[in-house]
Amino acid sequence: MPRIAVDAMGGDFAPEEIVRGVAQASLESDIQMVLVGASDKIQALLDAGPYNPELISVRHCSAAIGMAEDPREGLRAKRDASIAVAARMVAAGEADAMVSAGNTGACVLAAAKHFRLIRGVKKAALASVFPRQTEYPGQDTFGLLLDVGATIRCDAIELTQFAVMGSAYARRVSKVASPRVGLLNMGSEESKGGEVLVEAHRRMKSLPSVNFVGNVEGNDVATGKADVIVAEGLLGNVVLKLIEGIGEVATTVATHAAQDNWRWRLGMAMLSTGISRMRELGDFRTYGGAPILGFESLCIKAHGRSTAPAIKNAIKVAAKGVRDRISPEIAETLAQIR
Amino acid sequence: MPRIAVDAMGGDFAPEEIVRGVAQASLESDIQMVLVGASDKIQALLDAGPYNPELISVRHCSAAIGMAEDPREGLRAKRDASIAVAARMVAAGEADAMVSAGNTGACVLAAAKHFRLIRGVKKAALASVFPRQTEYPGQDTFGLLLDVGATIRCDAIELTQFAVMGSAYARRVSKVASPRVGLLNMGSEESKGGEVLVEAHRRMKSLPSVNFVGNVEGNDVATGKADVIVAEGLLGNVVLKLIEGIGEVATTVATHAAQDNWRWRLGMAMLSTGISRMRELGDFRTYGGAPILGFESLCIKAHGRSTAPAIKNAIKVAAKGVRDRISPEIAETLAQIR
Repeated sequence: MPRIAVDAMGGDFAPEEIVRGVAQASLESDIQMVLVGASDKIQALLDAGPYNPELISVRHCSAAIGMAEDPREGLRAKRDASIAVAARMVAAGEADAMVSAGNTGACVLAAAKHFRLIRGVKKAALASVFPRQTEYPGQDTFGLLLDVGATIRCDAIELTQFAVMGSAYARRVSKVASPRVGLLNMGSEESKGGEVLVEAHRRMKSLPSVNFVGNVEGNDVATGKADVIVAEGLLGNVVLKLIEGIGEVATTVATHAAQDNWRWRLGMAMLSTGISRMRELGDFRTYGGAPILGFESLCIKAHGRSTAPAIKNAIKVAAKGVRDRISPEIAETLAQIR
Repeated sequence: MPRIAVDAMGGDFAPEEIVRGVAQASLESDIQMVLVGASDKIQALLDAGPYNPELISVRHCSAAIGMAEDPREGLRAKRDASIAVAARMVAAGEADAMVSAGNTGACVLAAAKHFRLIRGVKKAALASVFPRQTEYPGQDTFGLLLDVGATIRCDAIELTQFAVMGSAYARRVSKVASPRVGLLNMGSEESKGGEVLVEAHRRMKSLPSVNFVGNVEGNDVATGKADVIVAEGLLGNVVLKLIEGIGEVATTVATHAAQDNWRWRLGMAMLSTGISRMRELGDFRTYGGAPILGFESLCIKAHGRSTAPAIKNAIKVAAKGVRDRISPEIAETLAQIR
């Protein structure tokens, strides 16, 4: 049985939705969970609804790092912060993986501080899922993008390792046997993008274990051309937030427009089932979270706005990652290409 | 009267739509235009409709660079290519600015080969307009993004010069008195993005002539937070193509969904005026094109898919750029900050 440490105090709706998600998971699975945070609050929230006490324990700690807090300062000042305690539990073998919906920077830094990098890995990467079109039957409706902010700039070897890590993760978690991996670039030709990207392209192409489909451009991101898209953190971060931002702006503009015009209002109403189906397709809650890859231990970062179902799914993803031995598989693949 | 050299052979719909656009411009303005390309074809196309012969002349040349052709190879092999001839005409003072809807790489390279960089400018930048939400009355419905592909990586001084150039252009052409300039980054704090972006932030903040609003993140791009967004070419190129790509995917998905469901079909029909108004707002044709900035001479790059109205508008933008002395203004501003 995998044991998952859950940061009860991290997230826009913590601790309420985190505890509720854990309670739900305890009724639907056999995953062992440790809620890390203010034990009084946690116990009161647990007692408010049904849960399986055999699968849930609580580890008290007194502090938490806020969503807008400076991650480095926060971790330095609050040794007893829930996210740091959860990471230390995993590092000490008291849990097999961790889940947090809290401050992303603090999550990455806590993992970096307490987890060991897989042998040979130069940098860890934060992945994220994003909704996109599908191109073939059975293709996942989400793509995986990494890195989205654990790094800033990367060299060719680091990018190549991201390709290996993202491919291993997508193969296990999304059940696509041979996920297509693309390198985000400013042109499709292998000569594009400058020295680092040309070299990364060459290295990825030579990997027997990776189904490399070449460079993907900005207009390929939403099409399903690649299942795993590799980029340095600065680029991946801007792309991920742009996708989220365009969705929000489109919703705002459409809603405002509809208020002024009865035909549009009626049209939006007729489309409402379609719109909610699209929203559902693009809803990060169905995915739960995305991993920080490259460490020996797994950390699943759930979205800050996660409610109980997202937390429940993030816990399941973490347990699956442990059962499917994602980190050991990454280690083995990297050892082969060295 | 500004004289504009127009590449008649460049673009997905060249020479037909290019010549038609020039003919239309000749009936609506006092701009002198030189059509550069296969003179027989051009004259035949001109004769097919009304135009003002006093404003149009033709410069014959025998070659053209294809949209998918390698720009460097093409320019080397075809000295007589329309885009190269147009650039040489501007360099020789036979025209004041040029317009092309052709191969973007060839356009940038031809300008780089024949135009002089403004004194002190390290690198030229290709700008592009993109549709976005507005935040204040009178704000342009398009933002300006630069660089989108003339460069790959940039240092802090180059990015700062892009801020000055983009600001000067937006002030003149979009009539926003004090365009907001933002630096595309992975966080809003000035400490984000690594050495180059931190230094670029510091430099932009200290510019008296630029209304610098700080870092903009991916989710700010579509909101109107900044009127001019500065990024190195790799990042700007991916962002621009991603915006175009998401629009295309959304249209495809919505159309397919509507085919399967009469309620949705009806809903889309009721929204059709709204959808076309949105499309119009986001239509690059209303803008004509975007400039390559940093050279003493102006080159307006129109979209490859430009039809006559877009070409006409691109010519007007080029003429306005000459009349408003954009390049001299950039030179003066840069001289002040050295």
